[in-house]
Amino acid sequence: MPILIKKRSQKAGLPPGTLVHIGERKVEKVRITIFDYDADQFQEKEAKTIEESYPFRDKPTVTWINIDGFHDTGIIEKLGNHFGLHPLLLEDIVNTEQRPKMDDYGNYIFIVLKMLYYREERKAVEAEQVSLVLGSNFVVSLQEREGDVFKPIRERIRNNKGRLRKAGADYLAYALLDAVVDNYFIVLEKLGEQIDDIEQQLATNPTKETLGHIREFKREMIFLRKSIWPLREVVGGLERCESPLIHKATGVYLRDVYDHTIQIIDTVESLRDILSGLLDVYLSSMSNRMNDVMKVLTIFASIFIPLTFIAGVYGMNFANMPELHWRYGYFEIWGVMVLVAVMLLIFFRRRKWL
Amino acid sequence: MPILIKKRSQKAGLPPGTLVHIGERKVEKVRITIFDYDADQFQEKEAKTIEESYPFRDKPTVTWINIDGFHDTGIIEKLGNHFGLHPLLLEDIVNTEQRPKMDDYGNYIFIVLKMLYYREERKAVEAEQVSLVLGSNFVVSLQEREGDVFKPIRERIRNNKGRLRKAGADYLAYALLDAVVDNYFIVLEKLGEQIDDIEQQLATNPTKETLGHIREFKREMIFLRKSIWPLREVVGGLERCESPLIHKATGVYLRDVYDHTIQIIDTVESLRDILSGLLDVYLSSMSNRMNDVMKVLTIFASIFIPLTFIAGVYGMNFANMPELHWRYGYFEIWGVMVLVAVMLLIFFRRRKWL
Amino acid sequence: MPILIKKRSQKAGLPPGTLVHIGERKVEKVRITIFDYDADQFQEKEAKTIEESYPFRDKPTVTWINIDGFHDTGIIEKLGNHFGLHPLLLEDIVNTEQRPKMDDYGNYIFIVLKMLYYREERKAVEAEQVSLVLGSNFVVSLQEREGDVFKPIRERIRNNKGRLRKAGADYLAYALLDAVVDNYFIVLEKLGEQIDDIEQQLATNPTKETLGHIREFKREMIFLRKSIWPLREVVGGLERCESPLIHKATGVYLRDVYDHTIQIIDTVESLRDILSGLLDVYLSSMSNRMNDVMKVLTIFASIFIPLTFIAGVYGMNFANMPELHWRYGYFEIWGVMVLVAVMLLIFFRRRKWL
Amino acid sequence: MPILIKKRSQKAGLPPGTLVHIGERKVEKVRITIFDYDADQFQEKEAKTIEESYPFRDKPTVTWINIDGFHDTGIIEKLGNHFGLHPLLLEDIVNTEQRPKMDDYGNYIFIVLKMLYYREERKAVEAEQVSLVLGSNFVVSLQEREGDVFKPIRERIRNNKGRLRKAGADYLAYALLDAVVDNYFIVLEKLGEQIDDIEQQLATNPTKETLGHIREFKREMIFLRKSIWPLREVVGGLERCESPLIHKATGVYLRDVYDHTIQIIDTVESLRDILSGLLDVYLSSMSNRMNDVMKVLTIFASIFIPLTFIAGVYGMNFANMPELHWRYGYFEIWGVMVLVAVMLLIFFRRRKWL
Amino acid sequence: MPILIKKRSQKAGLPPGTLVHIGERKVEKVRITIFDYDADQFQEKEAKTIEESYPFRDKPTVTWINIDGFHDTGIIEKLGNHFGLHPLLLEDIVNTEQRPKMDDYGNYIFIVLKMLYYREERKAVEAEQVSLVLGSNFVVSLQEREGDVFKPIRERIRNNKGRLRKAGADYLAYALLDAVVDNYFIVLEKLGEQIDDIEQQLATNPTKETLGHIREFKREMIFLRKSIWPLREVVGGLERCESPLIHKATGVYLRDVYDHTIQIIDTVESLRDILSGLLDVYLSSMSNRMNDVMKVLTIFASIFIPLTFIAGVYGMNFANMPELHWRYGYFEIWGVMVLVAVMLLIFFRRRKWL
Repeated sequence: MPILIKKRSQKAGLPPGTLVHIGERKVEKVRITIFDYDADQFQEKEAKTIEESYPFRDKPTVTWINIDGFHDTGIIEKLGNHFGLHPLLLEDIVNTEQRPKMDDYGNYIFIVLKMLYYREERKAVEAEQVSLVLGSNFVVSLQEREGDVFKPIRERIRNNKGRLRKAGADYLAYALLDAVVDNYFIVLEKLGEQIDDIEQQLATNPTKETLGHIREFKREMIFLRKSIWPLREVVGGLERCESPLIHKATGVYLRDVYDHTIQIIDTVESLRDILSGLLDVYLSSMSNRMNDVMKVLTIFASIFIPLTFIAGVYGMNFANMPELHWRYGYFEIWGVMVLVAVMLLIFFRRRKWL
Repeated sequence: MPILIKKRSQKAGLPPGTLVHIGERKVEKVRITIFDYDADQFQEKEAKTIEESYPFRDKPTVTWINIDGFHDTGIIEKLGNHFGLHPLLLEDIVNTEQRPKMDDYGNYIFIVLKMLYYREERKAVEAEQVSLVLGSNFVVSLQEREGDVFKPIRERIRNNKGRLRKAGADYLAYALLDAVVDNYFIVLEKLGEQIDDIEQQLATNPTKETLGHIREFKREMIFLRKSIWPLREVVGGLERCESPLIHKATGVYLRDVYDHTIQIIDTVESLRDILSGLLDVYLSSMSNRMNDVMKVLTIFASIFIPLTFIAGVYGMNFANMPELHWRYGYFEIWGVMVLVAVMLLIFFRRRKWL
Repeated sequence: MPILIKKRSQKAGLPPGTLVHIGERKVEKVRITIFDYDADQFQEKEAKTIEESYPFRDKPTVTWINIDGFHDTGIIEKLGNHFGLHPLLLEDIVNTEQRPKMDDYGNYIFIVLKMLYYREERKAVEAEQVSLVLGSNFVVSLQEREGDVFKPIRERIRNNKGRLRKAGADYLAYALLDAVVDNYFIVLEKLGEQIDDIEQQLATNPTKETLGHIREFKREMIFLRKSIWPLREVVGGLERCESPLIHKATGVYLRDVYDHTIQIIDTVESLRDILSGLLDVYLSSMSNRMNDVMKVLTIFASIFIPLTFIAGVYGMNFANMPELHWRYGYFEIWGVMVLVAVMLLIFFRRRKWL
Repeated sequence: MPILIKKRSQKAGLPPGTLVHIGERKVEKVRITIFDYDADQFQEKEAKTIEESYPFRDKPTVTWINIDGFHDTGIIEKLGNHFGLHPLLLEDIVNTEQRPKMDDYGNYIFIVLKMLYYREERKAVEAEQVSLVLGSNFVVSLQEREGDVFKPIRERIRNNKGRLRKAGADYLAYALLDAVVDNYFIVLEKLGEQIDDIEQQLATNPTKETLGHIREFKREMIFLRKSIWPLREVVGGLERCESPLIHKATGVYLRDVYDHTIQIIDTVESLRDILSGLLDVYLSSMSNRMNDVMKVLTIFASIFIPLTFIAGVYGMNFANMPELHWRYGYFEIWGVMVLVAVMLLIFFRRRKWL
Repeated sequence: MPILIKKRSQKAGLPPGTLVHIGERKVEKVRITIFDYDADQFQEKEAKTIEESYPFRDKPTVTWINIDGFHDTGIIEKLGNHFGLHPLLLEDIVNTEQRPKMDDYGNYIFIVLKMLYYREERKAVEAEQVSLVLGSNFVVSLQEREGDVFKPIRERIRNNKGRLRKAGADYLAYALLDAVVDNYFIVLEKLGEQIDDIEQQLATNPTKETLGHIREFKREMIFLRKSIWPLREVVGGLERCESPLIHKATGVYLRDVYDHTIQIIDTVESLRDILSGLLDVYLSSMSNRMNDVMKVLTIFASIFIPLTFIAGVYGMNFANMPELHWRYGYFEIWGVMVLVAVMLLIFFRRRKWL
C-alpha cells in the first residue's frame, strides 16, 4: 500500500534551504548521465562527478542532465550553486514528499512530478518523484532511483527521430512531461483490469478478501488522486505562463499534455465512482446472503417445530388418551404430520422462499 | 458494458504526432463520401482514394468529406498533409479514447465528439468517436465505422430543405453537431424507460438480477457522463470563440445546441439521482424481506416451543405425576395448550406482526 | 409521478426551426385572449384567429396576447412571421421539454418558465410550460392549456389596481413572472405539509407504503429542482441584461423576484435534506424492528429450550433412573424448571431486553 | 421544531408592494421606542403613535426607532411614506419568511436578519426576523415581538460607553448587527452542549429517543443553515458596498462581524458533520446489539438443541434398546450430555462469543 | 477530544474592543521575552513588565517580543496603546476561539494561527492560539502558554545561522509561520500512524472500542480542518498583499509555506477519506460477523431439529406402532438419523457455509 505521510520530523525547525533528504534511500550510487545535442550533432556521456556537467551550462546546444538518486545532498548543492538555483528549489528536490507543482523563477522553471509505475509482480502502483529544471538551453531531471519512462526519448535523441533534436530545451521538457503523463494511462489501464477482476469476484463469490481488495484499491485511489490532481495546475500553468523559456510552438504540445491530464483525472474519478459502487454491491451481497441463511433456518424450524410438537403430544403419558388406542392412530398421525408439512411448504413457495 | 479504459500501452513513448490507431477496428474498408454544394448546385460522390477529395479544398462551394473508419492511418496522414492539419490533431483523430474537445487552430477548428447509439437488441448504449474539422469552405468528418446519425442532413442537402444549402461550412458543422446531440435525447429516453422498468421490478419482485441491472446502469451512467459533460465546454467554446470561421448568424444556432447540451447534462444528473435512489430502495426492500422472514420464524418458534415444552412435561416418566391420572387430564392439557397459543397469537397481533 | 424525459424521437434529424409539438396535447382548441391597455383606457377581447392580434403590434398601448394551447403549430408560425420572431424561438415554444431560460434577441426577449400547480386531488405537482415574448410594447404569453396563475393580474388590469396599468410591457412581463414564482411557494407549502405527514407516519407506524411515499417524493424533488434551479439564471439574467426593453425602475422588482427564487431554491434544498434524513430514519426504524423481533424470538427460545431439555431428560426410558421414583420428584423438577426460567428472566432484564 | 415553510398562500397574486403580514402574530400591541443621541446629549422615549417619530427624521442627531410587532401593517405603511421607503421594502419587512439579505436603495440601506434565541425551557432554537433600515442619520429596527438582544446597546447609549455615542448611524447599525451575530455564538454553544449529551447517551445507552433527538437536531441544523449562510453575503455586501451611508472607519468593524459570521458558519458545518457521524454511530450500535442478541440465541439454541435430541433418543419406545437396560446408562448419558455442552462452550469461547 | 465551541457567553453584548479573555487560563504568570538583533549584534532579555519593551519600538534593529499567556488583558492593553494597535485586533488576540486569519492594518499586519502539538502521553492533538503582529521593524508574538515550536528559530538568532539575522522583520514573521506549519507535518505523521493502528485492529479483531477510536478521530479531523483550512487564505493573502511591510525577497519563502499548507490540506483530506473508508470496513465486518453467527445457528438448528422430530415420533405411545417391535428398529432409526445428518451437512457444504 502506498505510504501517505512520510517522515519529516527530522527536518522540522531547520532554516529554509537546508537540504535534508526526506524519503527512503532507493539507490546506492548517484548516477549522472548527460545528453548534449542540436539538430546536427549529438553527444552522450556518463559523468563521474557533477563537475563534469559544468561546461555544458554555457554551450549553445541543448543539454539534458539526468541524475538518478539525490540522497547525496552535496551533489545537489554543487549543482545548485553552479546553475544558480534558489535554495528553496534545492530543498524541494530532495524532499520526496513534494506535491506536484510548477514554479517560474524567471531564468529557469522548476517542475515537480510523480512518476508512477505499475509493478506487475506486486500488483501495486509505485511512485517516484521527478524534478525538472528547465533553463534556456538545458534541462536537469532528478529522479529518486534508476529506471524511468524516458527510454523512448533517449532513443529519439540518439536516432534523431521526430522534432526533438530540432527543437529547444522547452520541447525536451515537454517530451519528458509527456512521457510521464503517458505512463499514467498504462497504470490506469492495469488498475482498471484489476477492478474488473474484483467485479467478477463480487458477482461469483464475494469473500472477506474481496472487501480487503476494495479497501486497498480505495486507498491506492486516494494516493493517485493526490499525485495526479495537482498536475492539472502544473501543465495548465506551463501553458499559460508567459515565460520566454517556452516558445510559442511548444504551446500546442503542452495543450495536448493538458488534455491528457484532464482525461486521466476523469478516468481516476470514474474509477473512484466504480469502486464505491463495488462497496455497495459487496454490502448488499452480504445482506442477500444473510437473507438466504435466514430463509433456510426459518423453513427448517417452521416445518419441524410443529411436527415435533405433534409427536410430543402423543408421547405424553396420560392414562386416558383415546387416540393412542385407535387402531390406525399412529398412521393417521403420520398423515396429519405429512399434511402439515405440505401445507407449510406451499406457504413458503407462495412467499417465493423456495 | 462500456469499456472505460482502452489499451494505449502500445503508444506510450512514441514521439507526439505519431499516428497509432487506439481502439478496436470496427470496419473493414475505409469509405469516403463527398458532398459538394452551394445554394444552386449539388454534387454527391463516393471517392475510392483520398486523393479524389483534394480538388475540393480550393473550390468556393461548401464541401463535406465524410470518412468512415480511420484505422488506415496512411489515409489520415495524406489528408492531413493536403489540408495542412497539425500532426497532434491527426493523432487525436485516430485515438478513439479522446475526450470531447474543441481546438481552434486558426485556419481550421477541430472538434471531437462521442456519437451515442442505443442498441435495442443488446439494451445497451454504444459510443463511436466522431471528429470534425471545420475549414473556411469545407468540413471533414471522421467516424469509426459506417452508420451514423447524419442521414437527415444528407437528405436536407439533397433536397435543399431548410437553410443548409444557403449557409456556409460553419452551418454544416453546426448541423452535424446538432444531429449528434439530438440523438443523445433518444438514448436518454431509452435509458429512462429501462430505469422505469427496474423501478417496476423493485416494487413488485426485487431479485439479485435487479441489483445487477442497477449496477450496470450506474456504470453506463459514469460512461455517459464522461462522454457528455465535456460537450458543454466544446459547444460553449465554439459559441464564444471569435474565430472568423464561424459567422455571427450561426451563433444563435450554437446557443440552441448549447441549451440542449445543458438539458442533456441535467437529465443525466437526474437519472443518476434516481439510480442511487433505486439502490437505497433495493437495500431497504432487502431489509424488509429479512424482517418478514424473521417474523415468520419468530411466530412459529414462539408458539410451538412453549407447547412442545408442555407436551414434554407430560411425557416425563415420574412415578408420581397426579395429572396423568386425572380423568380428563389429556383434554384439559389440550385446553391449556390452545389457550397458550391463542394468547401468543393475540400478543403478536398487538405488535402488528400478523 | 412527473415524467422526466418526454418523447422527442419524432423530432431528431429535422432541420432547426421546424415546428414539432413535443409533449402531450393538453387542450382541444387553441384560445387567444388579448388585453390592450394604458393608464387611461383598457380593452379585452377573445380573438378567433391569430390575425386579429396583428394590428396591436403597432399600437403605442401595451398589449398582452395570451395563447392557451400551441399544438397547432400553424398559429405559432403565423404569429412568428408577423412579430418577426426567430425560428429557433418558435421551435422552443412548441417543445414543452424546454429548460427554463432567457434569451435576449435584441428587439425582443424570450423567456421560458415552468408553471407549477399542486393538484390537491392527486396529491401531486403538475407542470406546464409557459413562454413569454417581451417586445417594446407587447407581451405574448403561450401556455400548454387553459387555466393559469394569471387571474389576479387580469383583475389588476381590469380594475386598474397597483402600478400595472401605468407601467410598460416590461412591468407586465415582470408581473407574469412574479405570479408564476409566487405560486411555487404554494406548491412548496403543500409538499412541506405532505413531508410532515410522512414524518408523522415514520414516528408512529412506518410501513412499506411510507418508503414508497419517500421515494415518490424524492423523484418529485428531482423534478422540481430541474424546473426551479435554472430560474435563478433566468431572473438574474433579466436583471443584469442591459436591454433597452427593461426600464431601470423595473430592476428593483426583478431583484425582488430574484430574492424569491433564491428563497425557493433554498427551501427545495432544505426539503431534499429532510427527505434524505427521512430515509435514514426509515432504515433505522426497520433495523429497530428487526431487533425487537429478534429479542422476542431469543427470549422465548432461550427460556423454553432448556426447560424442554429438562422435560426430555425425564422422558427417557432408562431402566435405572432414581429421580423418577422419588416421592416428590415431579414437583421438585417443576421447582427446578421455574427456577431456571426465573434466572433467565433476570438475565434478560439485566440486559435491558425486557 | 422550527417551521421551514410558512403560510404564504393568502398573499399569492396580490400586486407587489401590498403589505400582508406573513407569519404568526407574536405580540398583542405594537411598541415603538425612540433613542435620539449624539456625543453630548441623549433622549429616550416610548412613542404612542408612529407619528411621534416623524420629527426625528430631519434632526442632525442619530435616531434609533425600534418597533416591536409589525402585524399592524398600517403603521409600517405610514412609516414608509414618511421616510420615503420603497413599497417592496415594506413588503419584505412584514413577510417574516424573508431570507437574510441586504439591499442598497441609494439613500438608505435595508438589512433583513434572523435573530436567534435558545429557549432553555423548550431546549430549542427560536427565530425572530429583524429588519434594519439605515439612513444617513437614523436607524429603524423592526422586530416581530418584544424582547431582543439589544439591551447592552441601549445601556451603552444611556451610559455613553464605548464609541457608540460618538459615531454615526452606520456604527449603530453595525452595533445592532454585531449583537445579533454575537448571540449566534451562544445558541451554538447550547447546541454543542446538547450534542455532547446525545453523544454521551449513544455511548452508554442508545434508545429510539436518541435517534429522535438526532433527527430533530438535524432539522434544527437545516433551519440554522438557512438563517445563517446568507448572512455571509449580507455582511460581506455591507463591507464592500461603496454607499456614502457607511463611513470608512466602520469598515474595520464590519470586517470583524464578517469574521464572526465565517466562524459561525464553520461551526455550523462542524456540528452538521458531527451529527451525521452520530447517526452512523447509532446505526452501528444497533447493529452491535443485534449481534449480541443473535449470539445469546445461538449459544442457547446450539447447546440445548443437541442435548434435547439425545434425551429424545432415549425417550423412544423401541422394544429393543440395549442402552436403556445398562446399569448406569442414565448416568453415562448425563456424562455424554455434559461433555457435549462443555465442548460447545469451548467452541464458542474460541470464537470469542463468550 | 478537542472542544469545538468555547464559552463566549460572558462576552456577548460588550462594546467592540472590550478585552475579555475567552478560553481556559493555561499559564499562571505572563512571561515576556525580547530578542533584538541585526546582522552584527544580538540581545536577548526576559522583561519583567511590558514597559521594558517600549524602547525597542523605535530602534532600527529587528525586535521580537514574545508574550506567553495573555489572560492578563491589562498587559495587552498597554502593549496595544504603545504600539498603536487597533482595539479590535487586541480583542482578537485574547479571544482564543479565533479563526486563523490575516488582517492588513496598513502600518502593521495581524496574523492569527493555531499552533498544533501532538501529546504523545494522551495520544491527542492539542491546539494553542498564536497571534503575530508584524510591524516595520518588530514582530510581537502572543501565545496562550509557555512552550512552543520556535526553539530552533531562537537558536538560529543566537548562532546567526541562515539568512535570519541578515533579513528584516518580515522574514522573522515568515520563519515563525514556517515553524508552526512545519509542526503540522509532525502532527499528521502521528495521526497517520494511529490510523494505521486502527486499520490493523479492524483487520484482526474489530471491537466496539475500534468504533470509538474511529469516531474520536473523525472529530479530531473536523477540528484539524477548522484550524488548517483557513491557513490557506492567510498565507495566500500574505503572499499576494502588496504591503510595503513584506519585501519582495520574502515572497518566494511565503510561496514555499503556501505549498506546504496546500500539501497539509491535501493530507488532511486524504486522512478523512481513509477514515470514512474505515467506518465502512467496520460496518461490513459487523455484518460479516452477524452472518457467521447466523450460519452457526442455522447449521445447528437445521441438523438437530429434524433429528429431534424423528426421536419424538418414536417416543409416541400409540398402542399400535409396528416399528417399535422390529428387532433392529432402534438401530435402523439411528441409521436414518445419521443419514439425514450427513445429507444436511452435504447441503451446507454445497452452499459454502462449512
